[in-house]
Amino acid sequence: MLRWITAGESHGPALVAVLEGMVAGVEVTTEELTAQLARRRLGFGRSPRMGFETDTVEFLGGVRHGRTQGGPIAVKIENSEWPKWEKVMAADPVDAAELDGLARNEPLTRPRPGHADLPGMQKYGFDEARPVLERASARETAARTALGTVAKGFLRQLLGVEIISHVVSIGAAEAPEGPEPLPSDLAAIDESPVRAFGQEATDAMVAEVDAVKQAGDTVGGVIEVIVYGLPPGLGSYVHWDRRLDARLAGALMGVQAMKGVEIGDGFTTARRWGSKAHDEIERGSRPKGVTRRSNRAGGLEGGVTNGEPLRARVAMKPISTVPKALSTVDVVTGEPAVAIHQRSDVCAVPRAGVVLESVVALVLADAALEKFGGDSMRETRANAEAYLKALEERW
Amino acid sequence: MLRWITAGESHGPALVAVLEGMVAGVEVTTEELTAQLARRRLGFGRSPRMGFETDTVEFLGGVRHGRTQGGPIAVKIENSEWPKWEKVMAADPVDAAELDGLARNEPLTRPRPGHADLPGMQKYGFDEARPVLERASARETAARTALGTVAKGFLRQLLGVEIISHVVSIGAAEAPEGPEPLPSDLAAIDESPVRAFGQEATDAMVAEVDAVKQAGDTVGGVIEVIVYGLPPGLGSYVHWDRRLDARLAGALMGVQAMKGVEIGDGFTTARRWGSKAHDEIERGSRPKGVTRRSNRAGGLEGGVTNGEPLRARVAMKPISTVPKALSTVDVVTGEPAVAIHQRSDVCAVPRAGVVLESVVALVLADAALEKFGGDSMRETRANAEAYLKALEERW
Amino acid sequence: MLRWITAGESHGPALVAVLEGMVAGVEVTTEELTAQLARRRLGFGRSPRMGFETDTVEFLGGVRHGRTQGGPIAVKIENSEWPKWEKVMAADPVDAAELDGLARNEPLTRPRPGHADLPGMQKYGFDEARPVLERASARETAARTALGTVAKGFLRQLLGVEIISHVVSIGAAEAPEGPEPLPSDLAAIDESPVRAFGQEATDAMVAEVDAVKQAGDTVGGVIEVIVYGLPPGLGSYVHWDRRLDARLAGALMGVQAMKGVEIGDGFTTARRWGSKAHDEIERGSRPKGVTRRSNRAGGLEGGVTNGEPLRARVAMKPISTVPKALSTVDVVTGEPAVAIHQRSDVCAVPRAGVVLESVVALVLADAALEKFGGDSMRETRANAEAYLKALEERW
Amino acid sequence: MLRWITAGESHGPALVAVLEGMVAGVEVTTEELTAQLARRRLGFGRSPRMGFETDTVEFLGGVRHGRTQGGPIAVKIENSEWPKWEKVMAADPVDAAELDGLARNEPLTRPRPGHADLPGMQKYGFDEARPVLERASARETAARTALGTVAKGFLRQLLGVEIISHVVSIGAAEAPEGPEPLPSDLAAIDESPVRAFGQEATDAMVAEVDAVKQAGDTVGGVIEVIVYGLPPGLGSYVHWDRRLDARLAGALMGVQAMKGVEIGDGFTTARRWGSKAHDEIERGSRPKGVTRRSNRAGGLEGGVTNGEPLRARVAMKPISTVPKALSTVDVVTGEPAVAIHQRSDVCAVPRAGVVLESVVALVLADAALEKFGGDSMRETRANAEAYLKALEERW
Repeated sequence: MLRWITAGESHGPALVAVLEGMVAGVEVTTEELTAQLARRRLGFGRSPRMGFETDTVEFLGGVRHGRTQGGPIAVKIENSEWPKWEKVMAADPVDAAELDGLARNEPLTRPRPGHADLPGMQKYGFDEARPVLERASARETAARTALGTVAKGFLRQLLGVEIISHVVSIGAAEAPEGPEPLPSDLAAIDESPVRAFGQEATDAMVAEVDAVKQAGDTVGGVIEVIVYGLPPGLGSYVHWDRRLDARLAGALMGVQAMKGVEIGDGFTTARRWGSKAHDEIERGSRPKGVTRRSNRAGGLEGGVTNGEPLRARVAMKPISTVPKALSTVDVVTGEPAVAIHQRSDVCAVPRAGVVLESVVALVLADAALEKFGGDSMRETRANAEAYLKALEERW
Repeated sequence: MLRWITAGESHGPALVAVLEGMVAGVEVTTEELTAQLARRRLGFGRSPRMGFETDTVEFLGGVRHGRTQGGPIAVKIENSEWPKWEKVMAADPVDAAELDGLARNEPLTRPRPGHADLPGMQKYGFDEARPVLERASARETAARTALGTVAKGFLRQLLGVEIISHVVSIGAAEAPEGPEPLPSDLAAIDESPVRAFGQEATDAMVAEVDAVKQAGDTVGGVIEVIVYGLPPGLGSYVHWDRRLDARLAGALMGVQAMKGVEIGDGFTTARRWGSKAHDEIERGSRPKGVTRRSNRAGGLEGGVTNGEPLRARVAMKPISTVPKALSTVDVVTGEPAVAIHQRSDVCAVPRAGVVLESVVALVLADAALEKFGGDSMRETRANAEAYLKALEERW
Repeated sequence: MLRWITAGESHGPALVAVLEGMVAGVEVTTEELTAQLARRRLGFGRSPRMGFETDTVEFLGGVRHGRTQGGPIAVKIENSEWPKWEKVMAADPVDAAELDGLARNEPLTRPRPGHADLPGMQKYGFDEARPVLERASARETAARTALGTVAKGFLRQLLGVEIISHVVSIGAAEAPEGPEPLPSDLAAIDESPVRAFGQEATDAMVAEVDAVKQAGDTVGGVIEVIVYGLPPGLGSYVHWDRRLDARLAGALMGVQAMKGVEIGDGFTTARRWGSKAHDEIERGSRPKGVTRRSNRAGGLEGGVTNGEPLRARVAMKPISTVPKALSTVDVVTGEPAVAIHQRSDVCAVPRAGVVLESVVALVLADAALEKFGGDSMRETRANAEAYLKALEERW
Repeated sequence: MLRWITAGESHGPALVAVLEGMVAGVEVTTEELTAQLARRRLGFGRSPRMGFETDTVEFLGGVRHGRTQGGPIAVKIENSEWPKWEKVMAADPVDAAELDGLARNEPLTRPRPGHADLPGMQKYGFDEARPVLERASARETAARTALGTVAKGFLRQLLGVEIISHVVSIGAAEAPEGPEPLPSDLAAIDESPVRAFGQEATDAMVAEVDAVKQAGDTVGGVIEVIVYGLPPGLGSYVHWDRRLDARLAGALMGVQAMKGVEIGDGFTTARRWGSKAHDEIERGSRPKGVTRRSNRAGGLEGGVTNGEPLRARVAMKPISTVPKALSTVDVVTGEPAVAIHQRSDVCAVPRAGVVLESVVALVLADAALEKFGGDSMRETRANAEAYLKALEERW
């Protein structure tokens, strides 16, 4: 069992994340975490905040001399703006006089539609939205990205698994039909200002973002995550909460702003007839004894990996903080108001990819540990290799 | 914490399901379970098997004189065909001579594309698909439907919550735009042979199923689940696995044959601009102090219910066992073959609705227990009412 | 992750138990379950009820032709007295006239000290103790015993692990100091009317039980569980809830009537000085490279198995239903009363051993699956053997 | 569901702990954490290290202006000696030349009996004990102590619950029979150099520790935790892992060096006859309608609190690092050796009390949240008060 837990507020001193259950011997460095966190700031149309987020990240436990040690892995990501917030967000009581007149401390009484603000205040009995937005903020995804980097390293070192993502649509602009990107395409995707695959897709989406920006609006999109190198047999059909599709759907929908998840051809498959919806099996050449004529299932049948690339698409809604502010109610006065406006981006879709890759990596690492067991890379890898060898002999 | 677990094979003696963590005092009867299980056999284009499934259901624990007792609730659903299978599926060893020549005992060596057959055999090291399909079969959903009936009763008796579903598309045939069905429409939906809302939708989908049947094919579709009567504040934004959208997505994708899940407008929202994607807030009239101008979010903001109806849509793939059989490989001979053909329906979409309602009910019951605590209906209801009263005073 | 869940009431139609997460290919038969359930009825001083409990047990899922199939394993244990209880304990509402005057249906309004009766009524808001005692009853341990039989089979087939138990004291009568029993002693222990090891121990405890019986009283005792054949490395020190001692303590204390648990020398160790409290290490002869001069730790250091036999002792209180009835209050009249007296035994200690073995087996099976992974006996065994081989080469 | 997770190594930069699932509105300050951490350094016979551990503690998330916010609560406890260890324990790779000759970096090849050293190396495949002892070290209990402080605050603010502990024996020196200490006795206990209740007990234990010290040895003992103010009805008999005794036993045995746990009179009860083993019930005076003549059960019947003080005793083994070093084997040379000797105390029993109080607090907070639900102190308290009022009316 692999557990991942995150803590910390958007404007608190730091985010903290703990990954419990990882084997010993996974190679990982602070530099790799920093690199993945930097990918989370990629993309066109980002807010000023993303620019000055330097994401100073530090392992506080679980890693020594570049290798995991078997114990919980703890990561701290500092908030570079903390000095501006240390009174307003102080853990300990602060003298009222010191807070008085601080703009940052003003109660946020105009809950923003699309955010957790209003239901959060209702649930927890808060008088204002500050405590809600501090924790509901997508800033938290930095913590999952850091842990996901460890999970990616584990999967790569275990099985050569590579996880990539690309943006398939922003607003009305969709990537053209065509072959899926490969791991070798990731660098190019990261260089696209919208993290799209190919120039045509990039141009269309850049144009969409420009139009949205011009209009003082925000826009959503769809991101695809693809995983190469998974063996058949991760996940299981024996109980619903062991199905890999269920676990992936939960983890992907559990990322801020996501409103839809599909595996393989997903909703398109629902429009199909059966004779054109599945992936026929044929004899392959060694070392892959059986092969498929297509991958509409996205690598999962019955909640189990089938050896084909795993594909999931995720629908992200437009950023809820819209420059042309939405209507709301001031919860103190009861009067109509426009929503509080924290600084905001035009489009968060490009940089969501690395977050989605990360949560996929965490789920897959969990499934791989369940399948292969072991407490060290050496042991887990030996178990995985023995399984693959048995598969190869048989299939 | 509410736990639900199911066991049993498609052709075994019975399915078993246990619901652990439910409060005492929920009113429920065998008759209600039978009624929901009958809804699972509704719908046009079903297989002969659905007809003779009588689903004799029995509580083995947890309920006395029509009320839950606080302990685990156990349900057994008998397999009316068991006499035909009692040797082939016997738990204990059977003399080889007794099995010899039984057609039902023949090894299933031609794995069916779209099913768990092949990855299941690879994962568990089976020589044939029988052990896989016995457990991966959608027959298991009867067990979740039975437990979901208890959860529905709990939610209704606690808060007046009603959960309905309807089919929004089958293949290319989609329900026309229009208002969502209400709880009072459920009986009419259940009478539609495709469980669609309205005559126009029904006619279009029936035509589609007819065409598919004619062609010797199968077809998928999309089902919508709508929940009325939820208070704001179920689920939470504080950790990803407390988000109600994540938990619903996991449970819905965890139903056999589902390939996509969206909350509210889902993938459509991803195409929108922010000014048209969210649900503006305005002052309502008592007792509902704040209200929304729309419900694009499907009742969930930041993973928390916001008091609007909860809406989720689920994409179901076509039945994988296609009469015009798909290509595969015989795993014994290694030769190309056509897939084994267990008896099959044309379209399972209409009857999936009650299963999806059930898993939604289980997730929501869990979230309600987390929010309101309590060990008896009286206590949990008192807690819920106190919360609602506090909300009303404030909002 | 291995999950075990039980359901059912003491006088309901049946107990149900589900074991989820077990690999495929474990050999197990109904006969083995029956044999272990019979061991649960062993022992001197038992109540009439234990005699007529025939414990008809049946697999409802998860096992085919004597082998587990990878899916959840469901077991049903029928209540042979059900016909006498089918109105009183009916799941569905029963006409009041039919219940009227049935002695078995009389409200139990005099809660018994030492039982869950009173706090259970308070917690769940019950007016009488029936719903409490039906589920709190030790009858439920039959369900865990059945599942534990599967876990024992798994451990034996995986690693040759053997789990035994014996009674080390009843009341004031203690077994004399001496060597621990071995697996080969289990048959003799089972033949002792008090499940003690050796004639001297047996005689002393039989005399104690006789004296207690004579006095119209009940008596407690201490049971020891010993596990042979565990490799080093199960459990972990990296997080408290991965420690095997913590998990065993929880499972053992989770058996009805248990009030204390110790690992190895336990409370005796707490009285010792360090130089006499630990197990010094010395070079062994192959294949066991390092060995210990003692086993005071009971096979666990830092929450991890160290290759020595695992030993746990559990303190069981006297049966709470004492023939010379205890004082209580009638909750209807508010008047002093004597406790309701369900039929009862003098001493339940002898037959608790098989229950404690079973929960130990379940915890160890979980730990072994965590360590070795795998989905079939073949795969899990190969992984375990590779680990043992690596250990042997190194240690 | 309340989750608590800790991370960090003994000589790493910091310990980190996260408490997930706590309601909003619990009052807590850094000062309170510091005070509890200081209690963990109390006691006679402690090592030099305990002296210079300054335990600089800081909330990194979840608390604002002295109140919890509903999100995960993260605590960091710095290691004041980190500068001495920053190369040896660096997360990132360090140039071999920089490590060369550092005494602290020498491989620890002589595993210490009684510690996780040897089984830990075997489990994780380590060549030396450093990675094991860094995480297995009791230093980690500081992290649980910090989180337990939040849980204690929650329970006190919710129900007026007070949790205390005292040492009941060290080696052969036992506290005399007598009344249990009350919350008002805690300050005096903390002032006793052995954390015993009363002068006689203190003197006896101090003499024992002196004798042990003189002899160059270490010594174990027994600590009792008592909880005042719990209502009846926490925990449950309905499933083994909901029983409060099982959960407490797991958490208490999950503390480093603990080898035994008993609830109430525990092992003593196992020696008793039933007529003298239970707590008879009688009519009390309002507001406590029923009362008990004794508390042998330690406040738990059937795994449920019964309104009496909860009592648990825990057996702690002597510190395994014994000045007169134990025999072991050098794993590199294979030659007999004496165990590596990290600096050590004579007796850790006095300061274990606050750790055990903390884990009890965490388990009870979890049980209280399960019973009362709610997301804020106001809501949870209202639910608890309504339950207590209903109890009072009825009992």
